[in-house]
Amino acid sequence: MKGLFIVFEGGDGVGKTTQVRHLAEWLREQGQQVLTTHEPGDTAVGLKLRQIVLDPATGDVDPRAEALLLAADKAQHLFEKVNPALASGVTVVCDRYVDSMIAYQGVGRELGAGEIADLARWATAGVVPDLTILMDVEPAQAVHRKTDRDRLEDAGAAFHQRVRRGYLALAEAAPERYLVLHARDELASNVAAVRARVAELMAVRA
Amino acid sequence: MKGLFIVFEGGDGVGKTTQVRHLAEWLREQGQQVLTTHEPGDTAVGLKLRQIVLDPATGDVDPRAEALLLAADKAQHLFEKVNPALASGVTVVCDRYVDSMIAYQGVGRELGAGEIADLARWATAGVVPDLTILMDVEPAQAVHRKTDRDRLEDAGAAFHQRVRRGYLALAEAAPERYLVLHARDELASNVAAVRARVAELMAVRA
Repeated sequence: MKGLFIVFEGGDGVGKTTQVRHLAEWLREQGQQVLTTHEPGDTAVGLKLRQIVLDPATGDVDPRAEALLLAADKAQHLFEKVNPALASGVTVVCDRYVDSMIAYQGVGRELGAGEIADLARWATAGVVPDLTILMDVEPAQAVHRKTDRDRLEDAGAAFHQRVRRGYLALAEAAPERYLVLHARDELASNVAAVRARVAELMAVRA
Repeated sequence: MKGLFIVFEGGDGVGKTTQVRHLAEWLREQGQQVLTTHEPGDTAVGLKLRQIVLDPATGDVDPRAEALLLAADKAQHLFEKVNPALASGVTVVCDRYVDSMIAYQGVGRELGAGEIADLARWATAGVVPDLTILMDVEPAQAVHRKTDRDRLEDAGAAFHQRVRRGYLALAEAAPERYLVLHARDELASNVAAVRARVAELMAVRA
């Protein structure tokens, strides 16, 4: 039987890594084989792509080129790690997947959510998670008098607001495949909510 | 006035590099500013992507990931080199462009010509050459008794037959933007045919 594919999504610093660890521990206690992984960068090719994008010597990277490199990372990650694990019955718990690309490149960088979703769908050959857990949080906003530095930070804040709306729109469009948590809620209560939802999924398949 | 964008296409060893050189020389004699370039790999990012795909340490690269890396190379090449040159009135003569991706990845590797064309169209934001010169040649075929080695070479021959058909289908679909030459014809006659066609284009725009 194919393994479950479970993804954690949300901005940086919302506690995805901690949730991945807690869920993987609990799944192993239930007797499941588990692969924990992350995007981008969890293959040899992906790591090199990340280095290219982050290397200051690279110069400016075209936004479409960046999105295509992220899509290539996803295709290779599925090919090398995710698909073989799922095929052999292993539960895969992944930190970020397609939704990050749609929210950041499509909505945040305004390349178009629909176009980026099409690109991601092609890159992943339509492999969709059984469950995506979105760790939602309201981005902080400055309210005091604007300086030049504040304007830069506002651009950052507007970007993060767009990213958040991008994530929420994906969750609203397919509630049966999403669990939306408030990232600022108690860790223990969020961990319990994830377990309850994953237990439901496992019961349906048992 | 925007520069002309002229592309040479066709398999390896059909003489594209020689044609690019002859055309660029002639254009400069006509007083044009010319940029000669090639895909993939004629940017810092593109060169690194090429190294990733060719490095034996990389292991197997998923065919979709490979196509996405090629598409990223195209996006970055336009962004860094081709678009700025065209915008400043420079004629760009490029060795390989989108058609290579459609013919090799879409038709040759059977990922789907339409899907690869969509991907390339997105990567290039619809930048289409004013003229594509296809250097067509019939791939060599073995006709003697089959050994295992021959079977491998047949797979190669079938691949190259598909690539050729992919190129020809693109040229047939838009004859006003293509010049199809027989790569085995006399160099001087092909050089003259290219000049005549490019001279027509220049006359229309003068």
